[in-house]
Amino acid sequence: MTARSWIVLTDGYTTTRNAKTAHGVLRYARDPVAAVLDREYAGKTMAEVMPGLGSDAPIVADLDEARQLGGTALLLGVATPGGWIPEHWRPWVLAAVDAGMEIANGLHRFLADDAELVERAGASGARLWDVRQPPDDLPLFTGRSIDVPQKTVLTVGSDCAVGKMTVSLELAAAAACAGTSAEFVATGQTGIMVAGKGIAVDRVISDFLAGAAETLVCDANQNAQVLMVEGQGSLWHPAYAGVTLGLLHGSAPHALVLCHQAGRTAIEEPPFTKLPPLPEMRRVYEEAARTVREARVVAVAVNCRDLSDDEAAAAIAEVEDEVGLPAADVFRGGGPKLWEAVRAEVGL
Amino acid sequence: MTARSWIVLTDGYTTTRNAKTAHGVLRYARDPVAAVLDREYAGKTMAEVMPGLGSDAPIVADLDEARQLGGTALLLGVATPGGWIPEHWRPWVLAAVDAGMEIANGLHRFLADDAELVERAGASGARLWDVRQPPDDLPLFTGRSIDVPQKTVLTVGSDCAVGKMTVSLELAAAAACAGTSAEFVATGQTGIMVAGKGIAVDRVISDFLAGAAETLVCDANQNAQVLMVEGQGSLWHPAYAGVTLGLLHGSAPHALVLCHQAGRTAIEEPPFTKLPPLPEMRRVYEEAARTVREARVVAVAVNCRDLSDDEAAAAIAEVEDEVGLPAADVFRGGGPKLWEAVRAEVGL
Repeated sequence: MTARSWIVLTDGYTTTRNAKTAHGVLRYARDPVAAVLDREYAGKTMAEVMPGLGSDAPIVADLDEARQLGGTALLLGVATPGGWIPEHWRPWVLAAVDAGMEIANGLHRFLADDAELVERAGASGARLWDVRQPPDDLPLFTGRSIDVPQKTVLTVGSDCAVGKMTVSLELAAAAACAGTSAEFVATGQTGIMVAGKGIAVDRVISDFLAGAAETLVCDANQNAQVLMVEGQGSLWHPAYAGVTLGLLHGSAPHALVLCHQAGRTAIEEPPFTKLPPLPEMRRVYEEAARTVREARVVAVAVNCRDLSDDEAAAAIAEVEDEVGLPAADVFRGGGPKLWEAVRAEVGL
Repeated sequence: MTARSWIVLTDGYTTTRNAKTAHGVLRYARDPVAAVLDREYAGKTMAEVMPGLGSDAPIVADLDEARQLGGTALLLGVATPGGWIPEHWRPWVLAAVDAGMEIANGLHRFLADDAELVERAGASGARLWDVRQPPDDLPLFTGRSIDVPQKTVLTVGSDCAVGKMTVSLELAAAAACAGTSAEFVATGQTGIMVAGKGIAVDRVISDFLAGAAETLVCDANQNAQVLMVEGQGSLWHPAYAGVTLGLLHGSAPHALVLCHQAGRTAIEEPPFTKLPPLPEMRRVYEEAARTVREARVVAVAVNCRDLSDDEAAAAIAEVEDEVGLPAADVFRGGGPKLWEAVRAEVGL
């Protein structure tokens, strides 16, 4: 098999929040990005358009040009309300299918349910990879994950969209820089595209949720010393708290890192439930973990995305004071500080 | 549509624990049971074979005989490991399909995935009802369930298989006897067959778990004053705690009834996690509920199935003493006592 090189399709969305899948892949993916496909910014590089992202991928207007740059796989780099592929993308998707490329889709609607794509992929040999489609042979939870040889670290959140995936990735990077072999364990669509594998646990039938998390941990790289498991949702987001708890029990972590956005006092979606103070969140997550294994919250990852550097420093200091734990913003280089707190706890 | 009258198929399993679906239907179903189909006990009645069940349904050896007794729908009354229909049942199932009957199946494997059954049902007009198959248009949780006009009561458990469905049914019966219109809201396969409708929440994709619970509550009988929602799993059973929490948040109960088996100190399945003391379970369930609505545990339903009457009375007294709440065993007539505790709390 040829090594995978991504063509990231974001046409019309490149700089928007809907393109967060693309942004995650551009920043963190294991596989290289050959090009970004967007007609508006064609001719520039991602470093010019979004300097904060840390990617210098070229932007092109055309699929053939992207393939000439080495692209082998088309990544649909957007999350749309309703989960549909943007209609104007279809000709590119069809062209990639007819060219026998791999198409990676993190949307809620699956390529495999699109009869035309399936038929044309059958003819060309294209692989339609719906990353949110879980394996169909998941087991129930049994407790096997309690016995894995690696140390397991789970990010838990005060809310959705506070940066749990990013924190897990930055913890893995910081561990690696410090000489500890770490594997990022993906549990959501962007994470799966970044890692090249994983299970979207919120897409699993509820009965098998903890079993899916257990499977991920048990099947992770045996040579890694530490597994950084991507958290999902929040115990205070009632739409997703079940997923959060199933992942917490199923992955049986040794340590937790609490992720929070500075200043957030309620969840951002209906019914906008109030968040308790951080020390209470810490206590509740530790209590919930205890059912399968004692695991402490060892640090707080504070997302300061809307703050100045001075404000961020003040917010982090305030969190440290309130919770009595190390805190840092991974978007401002705080990964190593958080990793040090984890390392000390798990004894690596 | 003709009124439904069940033929409960339990051949080979009638008195076993695997037949708990059948037992629940025989005891509680809205629709009448015309006959039980079991060759071993044919000629007797259920009152003779299982006097504790409160059913006097005749037992027959033959599908035609059951139909002559008025049976219109075949209920597969067993839960098998693996979720398969017992092989020796297939001729009866095929005969019922060919006769155009309704077939109700609570097993994990669906009739709709059996090509022969689907084809023959297409020819005869038989309805294949896989009760665990959730609707395919479930919404995400939004908080609508917080605003329903009815009072909502959820059973929560220390473990699986402690009697949550039975407690919800007995609470509904006790409420009705006391003049309060109550609806049982089914969330598992046996409950769905009993009620004739519902959603098996553990079969729902995790993302939609709380939304499914919310849908059940919002779609319940508007004329009922109180909804008795069947609980699932336990926050201390790590395989299912996510389901428990999603159901707790999604249904947004006004009051909780904690269900427990006397003497159980650990969950009954791997990894056999230890149960905390009852007062701690009460606190944790109330804390978890608070995210969407303040709801107190108002009583403890103590399942004393393995105890003598004296032992049961002692166990119930001990629970009342430990928790400081009314306790009773619904299998020993305790429904009205539990209902009185609920009624006082919700103000009906």
